[in-house]
Amino acid sequence: MRTSQLLLPTLREDPGEAETVSHRLMLRSGLIRRVAAGIYTYLPLGLRIIRKVEDIIRQEMNRAGAQELLMPVASPAELWRETGRWDFYGKELLRFKDRHERDFCLGPTHEEVITDLFRREVRSYRQLPLNFYQIQTKFRDEIRPRFGLMRGREFIMKDAYSFDADEAGARASYQKMYDAYHRIFTRCGLTFRAVEADTGLIGGSSSHEFMVLADTGEETVVYTETGTYAANVERAELLPPEEEHVEEFRPLMAVKTPNCRTVEEVTTFLKIEPNRLVKTLLYKAGDQTVAVLVRGDHDANEIKIRRILGVTEVELAGQAVVEKITGAPVGFAGPVGLTGVRVIADHAVKTARNVVVGGNQADTHYVDANWNRDFQVEQFADLRNARAGDPSPRKDGVLKATKGIEVGHVFMLGTKYSQSMNASFLDPNGKECLAVMGCYGIGVGRAAAAAVEQNHDDKGIIWPFPIAPFHVHLLPLGESSAVKETTARLYADLEAAGLEVLLDDRDERAGVKFNDADLIGAPYQVVVGEKGLAGGTVEMKTRRTGEKIKLAPADVPGTLLDLSRAFRTPTT
Amino acid sequence: MRTSQLLLPTLREDPGEAETVSHRLMLRSGLIRRVAAGIYTYLPLGLRIIRKVEDIIRQEMNRAGAQELLMPVASPAELWRETGRWDFYGKELLRFKDRHERDFCLGPTHEEVITDLFRREVRSYRQLPLNFYQIQTKFRDEIRPRFGLMRGREFIMKDAYSFDADEAGARASYQKMYDAYHRIFTRCGLTFRAVEADTGLIGGSSSHEFMVLADTGEETVVYTETGTYAANVERAELLPPEEEHVEEFRPLMAVKTPNCRTVEEVTTFLKIEPNRLVKTLLYKAGDQTVAVLVRGDHDANEIKIRRILGVTEVELAGQAVVEKITGAPVGFAGPVGLTGVRVIADHAVKTARNVVVGGNQADTHYVDANWNRDFQVEQFADLRNARAGDPSPRKDGVLKATKGIEVGHVFMLGTKYSQSMNASFLDPNGKECLAVMGCYGIGVGRAAAAAVEQNHDDKGIIWPFPIAPFHVHLLPLGESSAVKETTARLYADLEAAGLEVLLDDRDERAGVKFNDADLIGAPYQVVVGEKGLAGGTVEMKTRRTGEKIKLAPADVPGTLLDLSRAFRTPTT
Repeated sequence: MRTSQLLLPTLREDPGEAETVSHRLMLRSGLIRRVAAGIYTYLPLGLRIIRKVEDIIRQEMNRAGAQELLMPVASPAELWRETGRWDFYGKELLRFKDRHERDFCLGPTHEEVITDLFRREVRSYRQLPLNFYQIQTKFRDEIRPRFGLMRGREFIMKDAYSFDADEAGARASYQKMYDAYHRIFTRCGLTFRAVEADTGLIGGSSSHEFMVLADTGEETVVYTETGTYAANVERAELLPPEEEHVEEFRPLMAVKTPNCRTVEEVTTFLKIEPNRLVKTLLYKAGDQTVAVLVRGDHDANEIKIRRILGVTEVELAGQAVVEKITGAPVGFAGPVGLTGVRVIADHAVKTARNVVVGGNQADTHYVDANWNRDFQVEQFADLRNARAGDPSPRKDGVLKATKGIEVGHVFMLGTKYSQSMNASFLDPNGKECLAVMGCYGIGVGRAAAAAVEQNHDDKGIIWPFPIAPFHVHLLPLGESSAVKETTARLYADLEAAGLEVLLDDRDERAGVKFNDADLIGAPYQVVVGEKGLAGGTVEMKTRRTGEKIKLAPADVPGTLLDLSRAFRTPTT
Repeated sequence: MRTSQLLLPTLREDPGEAETVSHRLMLRSGLIRRVAAGIYTYLPLGLRIIRKVEDIIRQEMNRAGAQELLMPVASPAELWRETGRWDFYGKELLRFKDRHERDFCLGPTHEEVITDLFRREVRSYRQLPLNFYQIQTKFRDEIRPRFGLMRGREFIMKDAYSFDADEAGARASYQKMYDAYHRIFTRCGLTFRAVEADTGLIGGSSSHEFMVLADTGEETVVYTETGTYAANVERAELLPPEEEHVEEFRPLMAVKTPNCRTVEEVTTFLKIEPNRLVKTLLYKAGDQTVAVLVRGDHDANEIKIRRILGVTEVELAGQAVVEKITGAPVGFAGPVGLTGVRVIADHAVKTARNVVVGGNQADTHYVDANWNRDFQVEQFADLRNARAGDPSPRKDGVLKATKGIEVGHVFMLGTKYSQSMNASFLDPNGKECLAVMGCYGIGVGRAAAAAVEQNHDDKGIIWPFPIAPFHVHLLPLGESSAVKETTARLYADLEAAGLEVLLDDRDERAGVKFNDADLIGAPYQVVVGEKGLAGGTVEMKTRRTGEKIKLAPADVPGTLLDLSRAFRTPTT
């Protein structure tokens, strides 16, 4: 394709709206443009990338025996009321009324619609297993859409739903998808890791996220060197630490800590390490307020707190509640003498001795406080985020941590949806049984954005070959007939070899063409210049390494085919 | 593909919800399922057909130099307010608010969004012409969604938008799309006609509809035998008839017409032909009421009435208004002595002599009423629908009429949108000029449904080869190893030949398999039976003709390739 026939508005400057590498580079290289917050148009080059990711997904889903169908974007409320998610889902579910005042939502996920299809159309165990997927525009009304395609409100997703006759079948379907996802992200040219994850709004018994590893990722992943364990930090289980009892109890003492509210302020003032302090966090959980104790060097994990409390939502109590319960301003809450609230604590608090806690009085903390002597705890549990250095829950060494971007998520749903919607089939004995389900998502646009986060340098994007918008960027310099003829022949020969060529036929300076080529990030660049042609060569540059070689024009297609062979053959 | 691995829920009975052939057959053959009124899931077989239509569209749009991109489904209200369509569009525009109470709509068409993109990204005449297209799920909140994919609320559409530097360029872009549409529908295997059409809610200076001809079509098309003229009946212009003055004026006389309100009742009672009566229709047009006179055998055309009155909406006045203005019950309005309303009339009323009109009194009509003697008309104009037998506006014979289904629509927009949104570019002299636009739509699902309306018999669908979900339906009968082996070999050989095969591997009776194969409508069926194999043959049936031939299994792929050659080569 010729740039003169393509809307490809590259930008020299970083656009103000962009906060992350992929957002900035996808805007600068003319892949996307913002229409509203979290809502984008995919320009021609951007759409080419999306389609390539979709094609890889489609091939691997079909290979895994899944059937493609297409459900509607508009979902009727009745179905969502059957599963209770109409009320449960919250404001991310974009709701609307049609002209007859009937309730609908823009489907953020399609468990309800597919389960309804199943219960209407599937009768017998003979028809199982079934796995349906679609690639579709979805909508989630994120409160803070940001980072371009990374956390948009309207986005393209592949979602799949499996139906099996029993748990063992469902596990096999889950494993098939798990394996298909490995092939998909491998074929996309991404470095990734599958990790245990929380099931969130989808529900179900277990799940894995597929994380593209990148320093700029929003998620933290912990894993063991041996590969036996990997999990999203919010999900990673932590075992209770061994009891140590190394310190003698010292007497409890109140100390003045003027204006010291945060862990950092208090520990700096008292000249202690953060692990010698226990934070007291007051959470609202439905009608009740709960005090959660976590060591000063640990982060409370709200997912774990929700699970222990058996609620779907918790939030930190506001100033008024804190003052009413503690009798002190925010920043001085502590468990000593605290009444009227449940107190739960992270396991690590149980073995901490002689710790600093809030004094429930302005500008006051206690030092050398001890559980079971100075304060009581109703329940100890795993309530904090894992971090590098924590012992592995598999007891095989310590956890390491890395940053990642979630691009896929597979869930074992069990009978959560088939039960509430009565999606059953007849088993060999004619008995009605509930289908055992799984669901499986991939964020198509997010996978493309994650590829940029993982593959870029200060000049621009470095597309993995399989999802690059073009394989070769052909850059003629100058107007001589030798340049023109060689360029035309090379363009034809490369396309005939099955390579996708972007020809920069603009009348621009060499520097502008080089900068745009590096920005757009095709894996290979071929420069046709007069000087080179005088010596019978063109210059081929590999975008990732910057390596340049001189070649006779006739050798270019073969060389590029050799270099890209590994990427052009689907992994099997 | 094997039916055992496919959700293909064929139905023996006609579903109650289906009103038209295509709706009934698409439900029965397991292509679609209803989720809500006018909202469907495309099952795997249905989606295959959609994808084939999309692929043909995509190839021809690319060939015509259009660039594919993808705009969002959710459109911000600000853009629609700039063009005035936020208010103008009415209830078909599905509106919603996001969690921050910002107004959006589900885009039924994307002139606003693409024009906004143009004005932000395009600067110079050097970048023109441009033509952008997308294939996307759209939403129109039809008041009466019906006929399955024919008039759904959520539907898949190809929409394209061209931008040119001047009128001549815009006409050339329009012609390119017109030609591309001819290629697209030809390649889909459809019989169709391009006709002049009204521009409706899109606006612009002129437009053509592409009509798939089918007796069951909702639209009427009129055309001349010579092909010089073809138009949607609602658009077709009619010239004033020649004055005839053959009859002497007879004296006006009131007659009793008890309980005769309709044209049929009155003309039957008075024993006259409907063309001897003039209807008086009272329309509300904004604040005013207008009397429209149309001959009894003609149908009033509201689009033409709107245009003459310069309003965007007209509706028949209600009973109260009619009684107030005429002093009589509904059914007896007439122009004689009518005051307080504008009176306009169709051209044919001018030359009608001694006609029957309402008497503005219960159970009363006038006979032998004459314009200019008994009643006055403010303006004569073309206000009725054309019909077979009317003279061609090109004065080359009479019009014929046929039924059609609109599957594509091309519009010359002019500067309607570029003006209201200030979408300009710099011409060679550095002067700011408004882009001249066109827009071009194809209903993808409707094209598939129209194909069914045009290609079916009482047994089911007869898919045109290029958009058939499968090319060959392979039907093994019985369980003998000869049948199994021949089937397996044929399946492999046909797929190796590039033909798409649906293998009915169900354990069903021959009759069930034959019925389903006729219903699903693959162009060719191959029956592998024990009797035939004993004689060394299988039976190949052409679905459209019912013709059956016996062939050696080894000859089947070659024979099918020969038969389908014309369809497999894109027309150029």
